[in-house]
Amino acid sequence: MTQTDAGWVKIVGLGPGNETMVTVQVQDVLAEATDVVGYIPYVKRIPERPGLTLHATDNRVEIERATHALEMAAAGQRVAVVSSGDPGVFAMASAVFEALEVGKPDWLDLDIQVLPGITAMLAASARIGAPMGHDFAAINLSDNLKPWSLIEKRLRLAGEAGFAMGFYNPRSKSRPHQFGRALEILREACGGDTLISFARDVSKPGETITTVTLNEATPAMADMRTVVIVGNADTRRVGRHVYTPRYATEG
Amino acid sequence: MTQTDAGWVKIVGLGPGNETMVTVQVQDVLAEATDVVGYIPYVKRIPERPGLTLHATDNRVEIERATHALEMAAAGQRVAVVSSGDPGVFAMASAVFEALEVGKPDWLDLDIQVLPGITAMLAASARIGAPMGHDFAAINLSDNLKPWSLIEKRLRLAGEAGFAMGFYNPRSKSRPHQFGRALEILREACGGDTLISFARDVSKPGETITTVTLNEATPAMADMRTVVIVGNADTRRVGRHVYTPRYATEG
Repeated sequence: MTQTDAGWVKIVGLGPGNETMVTVQVQDVLAEATDVVGYIPYVKRIPERPGLTLHATDNRVEIERATHALEMAAAGQRVAVVSSGDPGVFAMASAVFEALEVGKPDWLDLDIQVLPGITAMLAASARIGAPMGHDFAAINLSDNLKPWSLIEKRLRLAGEAGFAMGFYNPRSKSRPHQFGRALEILREACGGDTLISFARDVSKPGETITTVTLNEATPAMADMRTVVIVGNADTRRVGRHVYTPRYATEG
Repeated sequence: MTQTDAGWVKIVGLGPGNETMVTVQVQDVLAEATDVVGYIPYVKRIPERPGLTLHATDNRVEIERATHALEMAAAGQRVAVVSSGDPGVFAMASAVFEALEVGKPDWLDLDIQVLPGITAMLAASARIGAPMGHDFAAINLSDNLKPWSLIEKRLRLAGEAGFAMGFYNPRSKSRPHQFGRALEILREACGGDTLISFARDVSKPGETITTVTLNEATPAMADMRTVVIVGNADTRRVGRHVYTPRYATEG
């Protein structure tokens, strides 16, 4: 095969931060790649080596980055698109398919694969105990790509359903008040005694895990480096751990 | 430290089946363990070695298995409790904490850790494309530990919320009719044109991935080795892939 025949895009998950939480298959892809593209802090995690070009780009340019990856693969390069966590969960996989949809028709024949990683919500859950041990929902609290009203609706319905919940991007400087509103809705929908955990820098140096009740929770407990996990009505403490039983006591 | 001081329980995720989808930290725990406990097919994945005792037990004895793990750790053994996928998602982590809650008080001081793995839903999502690329819910369709009426309620509310959904344990011989009922509810809640994917034996030999619309889906497409993923109103095909955009078009 010529180099042109061998081009590919593999969208890989680097896990939450700790290098021992990467899968073997993702390590293998990174060893075979000619190019790595991704957001600056994730590309910084990839060691330099001869034959590998690192393309680090800023936040909020996901479609440009994805298009660049597809262009390079069409030219025969072996391109790893890196995300932290799992690329299929609020990360680069959907952005690559969005770019593919509006890109050159012959890109549809490219070898494009997604290789999962440990997503932040489940890495946080493991450190907390097992708060996602029953049915759960994962919600991105950023309103960059959907209206805030839809986020409020989803919080209410997820609470009514009795789902445990994991929240990505709970709070940023550009929208400081929304997370306080989310906490209000959750107190109404789930009850103020429900446990909520704030997991910051999971698996990284300085990791902190804090569990309180929804009544005790304040917006300042979360920032963009925090994953927030809310339990269901059965979620409880046992010793140092917080877990949700496999069974449901509500009907 | 004496051996008694060094006992621990680490509840580890083996991922969906392919050995390259295990994390490095889980491999390290398996190398350090004196005992491995788990359901027969998962324990079969662990290579035998001198100094390691394998304790394989049948399905539906999770609390007995968890109690045995805690007893051995209290006696100074280094015990790996193995689950496929992620132990925190419909697997052994909650069972260990349930056993801890009703066990000997001094077990609360044991070193108990959960080490995540690639859960079946997200492994399937990666093989399909990126169907979980927007907000989503994960639901265990087995009514062993909760009433079927609660499952129906959650399906309706998740559809109303516009969540993509991942279903574990969609169908078994002992409850052949419930998955047909779930498909009826989903058609009503999400619309018959919504895409549904059936991922069987993900990452294992003989893996099959089938995507149809809810109108085309039949109960026979799922069994206990299948993870089922339902998209939201924006989920679509691009080439060979199925993905959900990061943005929402509904309000």
